[in-house]
Amino acid sequence: MSSGDPVTAVRVACCQVRLAVGDVDGNRARVRRAVAEAAEAGARIIVLPELANSGYVFRDAAEARSLAEPADGPTVAGWVDLALRHDAVLVGGFCELDPDRRVRNSAVLVDASGVRALYRKAHLWDREKLVFDPGDAAPAVVDTAYGRLAVMICYDLEFPEWTRMAALAGTQLLCAPVNWPQLPRPAGERPSEIVRVQAAAAINRMFVAVADRTAGERGVDWVGGTVVVDPDGWPLRDLVLGREATVVADLDLAAARDKRISEHNDVHADRRPDLYAPVYRI
Amino acid sequence: MSSGDPVTAVRVACCQVRLAVGDVDGNRARVRRAVAEAAEAGARIIVLPELANSGYVFRDAAEARSLAEPADGPTVAGWVDLALRHDAVLVGGFCELDPDRRVRNSAVLVDASGVRALYRKAHLWDREKLVFDPGDAAPAVVDTAYGRLAVMICYDLEFPEWTRMAALAGTQLLCAPVNWPQLPRPAGERPSEIVRVQAAAAINRMFVAVADRTAGERGVDWVGGTVVVDPDGWPLRDLVLGREATVVADLDLAAARDKRISEHNDVHADRRPDLYAPVYRI
Repeated sequence: MSSGDPVTAVRVACCQVRLAVGDVDGNRARVRRAVAEAAEAGARIIVLPELANSGYVFRDAAEARSLAEPADGPTVAGWVDLALRHDAVLVGGFCELDPDRRVRNSAVLVDASGVRALYRKAHLWDREKLVFDPGDAAPAVVDTAYGRLAVMICYDLEFPEWTRMAALAGTQLLCAPVNWPQLPRPAGERPSEIVRVQAAAAINRMFVAVADRTAGERGVDWVGGTVVVDPDGWPLRDLVLGREATVVADLDLAAARDKRISEHNDVHADRRPDLYAPVYRI
Repeated sequence: MSSGDPVTAVRVACCQVRLAVGDVDGNRARVRRAVAEAAEAGARIIVLPELANSGYVFRDAAEARSLAEPADGPTVAGWVDLALRHDAVLVGGFCELDPDRRVRNSAVLVDASGVRALYRKAHLWDREKLVFDPGDAAPAVVDTAYGRLAVMICYDLEFPEWTRMAALAGTQLLCAPVNWPQLPRPAGERPSEIVRVQAAAAINRMFVAVADRTAGERGVDWVGGTVVVDPDGWPLRDLVLGREATVVADLDLAAARDKRISEHNDVHADRRPDLYAPVYRI
């Protein structure tokens, strides 16, 4: 790096935390501990799971509502405090009660200056549709001290339109809180959620950092598929499937600005938007 | 299957053929032999590599032009003849001289009735840009005796807009002639081209059948990544990386009509096109 270049190499940690539905205090404490450990290990961008305050497997909409809190409530305020104390960027998911008293599956990006972005999951998974109102805004894209970061949540990742939108907005690192429910897969195969994240990263030449959760809940088990993927689509560390763990990786986020993959190819410039437009109006 | 249902289970073969640039007669003969063997094994849909008449690593545009032939030329006429003889659907790539004398990286879908679709690669790879005019039409989508098939070529697969367009048009089986150049990958990792195909299949819940080639050519080696992937995104057979081989799989194409993945999810109905449209106009 020549002098005067912006600092782009940064240590990222994704915390695969044990969560328990309804145990808001316990969840907060486990997240706080994981963040402190990640920061101590030098992480400056820290990603937490989806619904990290409430847990996931709600009995019904009423239970989710009872666990929801505003974006200026104690969970997010606590994360801002952690960001300030550890001089870090935090991305985490939480069960939100929005100003219109609708319940949302949300995530924030916070840094020492406060809440930089509030994102509400636009693609809801299964019974989430009975519990949450979906978001209506694009993926959050934020310039931080370390580069341009985007935020989306879990099932959002399975819509290439959504990951492409974030990428076309200049995202260098896509941060995704998830709760990936365990599904059957053939022997020897990597969880398909990770395969899709690898493809999204490679297709857009951006980094993707996913924080999943652990600890079975009311009959649902989790992949525990926390992973950091590089712009070639390769996981940067061994998978930590299923156990409590923090995945740490040092990323040169500037690499994600370069979309070239051969002398004559650029994964974004090679798009043919005039040919795509009509069908996306369907 | 109840009586009266359309027949949807079909044997598909993808022929990973040895090709040699400039050896049009030899390439035709090897393809003919591979198709005969696949048909004898019961295949009714047979997929061949990209540029199966000409080979790939042209010295320059003039060499490609010298090997190009019209869509009613001997290569495609020979494939129609094979389709008729073997009562099969054939999808294969060829170097085309179009009616305006432009050179194209094209593919046809033929059956016993003749040429059902002519597709011209819309996303050109590397030095192809110096050789071919890109296509300007959507992926070809054709109703055959066995179900709805789509055709695209190689690098096209890396544009989720393109695979989505084919899927939204009702494709049950996406057939893709490819020539995947060998690139470095970490130990233990599957070729990234296959990872991206797995993601495209799962994200759209459609089958994808890819026919790659073998035999190094002027310093370029090939993945030999021929693969048939199911709507969950899993390869249906062991990979045959790099060697001459035919991958055969029996597919229940009707399964690709069902886009549900949970009680409340459908991978296509869950899209939020109103939120996607603006950025795809970029």
